[in-house]
Amino acid sequence: MTSETTDLFPADDFQAHLDEAAAAASVLRTARSARKDAALRAIADALNADSETILAANRADLDRGKDTLSEALQDRLRLTPERISALAAALRRTADLTDPVGEVVRGHQMPNGVSLQQIRVPFGVVAVIYEARPNVTVDLAALCIKSGNAVVLRGGSAARITNDCLVATIRRALEQTGLPAGAVVTVDKFGRAGAHALMRARGSVDVLIPRGGAGLIRSVVEESRVPVIETGAGNVHIYLDASADVEKAVRIAVNAKTQRPSVCNAAETLLVHADAAARVLPAVAEALRGAGVRLHADQRAAALIGECVPATDSDWETEYLSLDMAVRVVDSIDDAMAHIAKYSTHHTETIITEDLGSADRFLAEVDSAVVMVNASTRFSDGGEFGFGAEVGISTQKLHARGPMGLQELTSTKWLVRGNGQTRGE
Amino acid sequence: MTSETTDLFPADDFQAHLDEAAAAASVLRTARSARKDAALRAIADALNADSETILAANRADLDRGKDTLSEALQDRLRLTPERISALAAALRRTADLTDPVGEVVRGHQMPNGVSLQQIRVPFGVVAVIYEARPNVTVDLAALCIKSGNAVVLRGGSAARITNDCLVATIRRALEQTGLPAGAVVTVDKFGRAGAHALMRARGSVDVLIPRGGAGLIRSVVEESRVPVIETGAGNVHIYLDASADVEKAVRIAVNAKTQRPSVCNAAETLLVHADAAARVLPAVAEALRGAGVRLHADQRAAALIGECVPATDSDWETEYLSLDMAVRVVDSIDDAMAHIAKYSTHHTETIITEDLGSADRFLAEVDSAVVMVNASTRFSDGGEFGFGAEVGISTQKLHARGPMGLQELTSTKWLVRGNGQTRGE
Repeated sequence: MTSETTDLFPADDFQAHLDEAAAAASVLRTARSARKDAALRAIADALNADSETILAANRADLDRGKDTLSEALQDRLRLTPERISALAAALRRTADLTDPVGEVVRGHQMPNGVSLQQIRVPFGVVAVIYEARPNVTVDLAALCIKSGNAVVLRGGSAARITNDCLVATIRRALEQTGLPAGAVVTVDKFGRAGAHALMRARGSVDVLIPRGGAGLIRSVVEESRVPVIETGAGNVHIYLDASADVEKAVRIAVNAKTQRPSVCNAAETLLVHADAAARVLPAVAEALRGAGVRLHADQRAAALIGECVPATDSDWETEYLSLDMAVRVVDSIDDAMAHIAKYSTHHTETIITEDLGSADRFLAEVDSAVVMVNASTRFSDGGEFGFGAEVGISTQKLHARGPMGLQELTSTKWLVRGNGQTRGE
Repeated sequence: MTSETTDLFPADDFQAHLDEAAAAASVLRTARSARKDAALRAIADALNADSETILAANRADLDRGKDTLSEALQDRLRLTPERISALAAALRRTADLTDPVGEVVRGHQMPNGVSLQQIRVPFGVVAVIYEARPNVTVDLAALCIKSGNAVVLRGGSAARITNDCLVATIRRALEQTGLPAGAVVTVDKFGRAGAHALMRARGSVDVLIPRGGAGLIRSVVEESRVPVIETGAGNVHIYLDASADVEKAVRIAVNAKTQRPSVCNAAETLLVHADAAARVLPAVAEALRGAGVRLHADQRAAALIGECVPATDSDWETEYLSLDMAVRVVDSIDDAMAHIAKYSTHHTETIITEDLGSADRFLAEVDSAVVMVNASTRFSDGGEFGFGAEVGISTQKLHARGPMGLQELTSTKWLVRGNGQTRGE
């Protein structure tokens, strides 16, 4: 918040929004699963019922943005009848998941007979700062309600009219099922100053999740005084070991790079052991080029793969999110792991190998959230992991690491039951 | 870091200290339990062997501080032959604990045969900022080594000579057992600027733990750009329900308030249901006064308990850490829980009741790290919980909540094993 805006910021109104969420959180904390699930299904019905209003709001946002937003951003912003149905279906699937709240994580009895149980509880108030993607509004509302949290949403301004409409629909459905509307609060109307105020809202916000590009995430991580879960960029590596099977290498490299190049678990750099380069790299490079990939190769790789552009040091640290891939020949698994340690964002890496020792070393020594053997990095995903719903992929080590499901939206508390025991008896 | 010191701060030298820890962390990450335990036992032996040197260093610190440090601070700073032996014994007990690293937290097979395992791994580099307590230097070094982490220590300047001596002893013992000395690094020589630089060391420090008074913790939480685990203040409540048993109430109140008043799990406020006040409060108050406690009572309580001082609103939010206790009569369990929600630091609260419904409501609705029924709040402790070692008590909801043991010094990672699978097949 700059000093010019401080005086104008309606702090009382903003705090009232956070207080509404806090009051709702205290109801949601002890709400039964059946009630939360009924609310999610009611929201699904309401989205379908309000479909025309929502689409009209979305058209207004698209009109506002048609000269300023790129095609890709317009596509992320756009809702269609099919996309609204898909959001409703996702809500129903979330309702079908197991409620993480109340799970007993561990427990035992103290020697004096006092019973200890650590159970999962909601965080309370979760805040999310994200870009102009209306589907995130609905997904995050669903995940937070299911896990017993109230959510405070701050979406990208390009989606403001759509988000206002979606949140109104969600709040009406909540009230109809007897849960407080404050379970889902938007602070979009406060603009950028509202996002900054969220980062300062210690005591009112229990956890803040930034979802979006690297710039957004970095600014939240650096400015926030509220605990943050960092969902992160993926500079993802494939390492073809000396013993790599050619057919697996080709299949996994093509899938990891090209199945959906714009997402964080898509591979960005291919490292190849020198002893495998001549045997494996030409076929892999040909398959990648055949799938439309432009290869950025170091000199040793370039000598083996034909058409490519020369790689510079900046290629090693680039998350392309496009049909580009860096290729480098390394002399050993140690060199491969040193390259990964230096350039990776510690999201996901995979080794292609037939050698047990190499597999074991890679799994043990690579310090990333998800480390794979002979599998596509595209599996690094909450849906693929069976979590049923995707909060994001954490690249930090505190609290959650890797794909985050409902469980990662909970904290724990200790229940201690005695019958008069005191310490030091 | 103030602007005056920025120019003078030896950033390269400081970074070299962090790099030494990072290099050691990559060795510790895969070090076997037996090796880490051998190092802890070697450190225990070395502390006893170097006892005279350590005591001399400690006398030098005590001499420096004899005119400026309070009796209590001098006592916390003071080492004796017995205290050094106790530290060595604690090291051996830590060696005997189960290693958290490698524990499989969960796992399953994907429908396509890919195997998923989430396992515990060390954080990497843990930094701790703490006050002038040499025992914390040894305890934290032991806990971090055991959990496979390197630790960067910044202790209070009043203990600087002692800490330098302890760290030198620890590093020699590590090298003798073949582990890198960089597993334990002190940045005390960089003074306050070093503490601030730790808070800014994103990418070099994985987690920062402040241990000490409320002011220290608040400044770290507000300034740090590194993920923080907040170990917190305890404004701890005892609620005597309408059905409270007098004998349990007396026993637990006296134990919770007086067994060790200076620690965070000591009780600070006593809430009493109006229907129980006349029956229970006089005996509880008399027992507390008999144990030397000064009661700060609201009007309704004062009418029942005789000698006391009038409570003001500031009493409700005070963590006395002394033989003082606030007392208030409330009209219902809802009023008691509303008082707790408003004033508690969400550390530990206990209800004294014979009523199942009250017990269940208190456990479910009070949003604190540890919630108890008919037990002393003094049990809210890593040692009492059976963790064997105490990192601190977390009052945040992210990652760790309540007493923290070795497990809370770990992160997790996902190991994914396939044999060529790709997504979308």
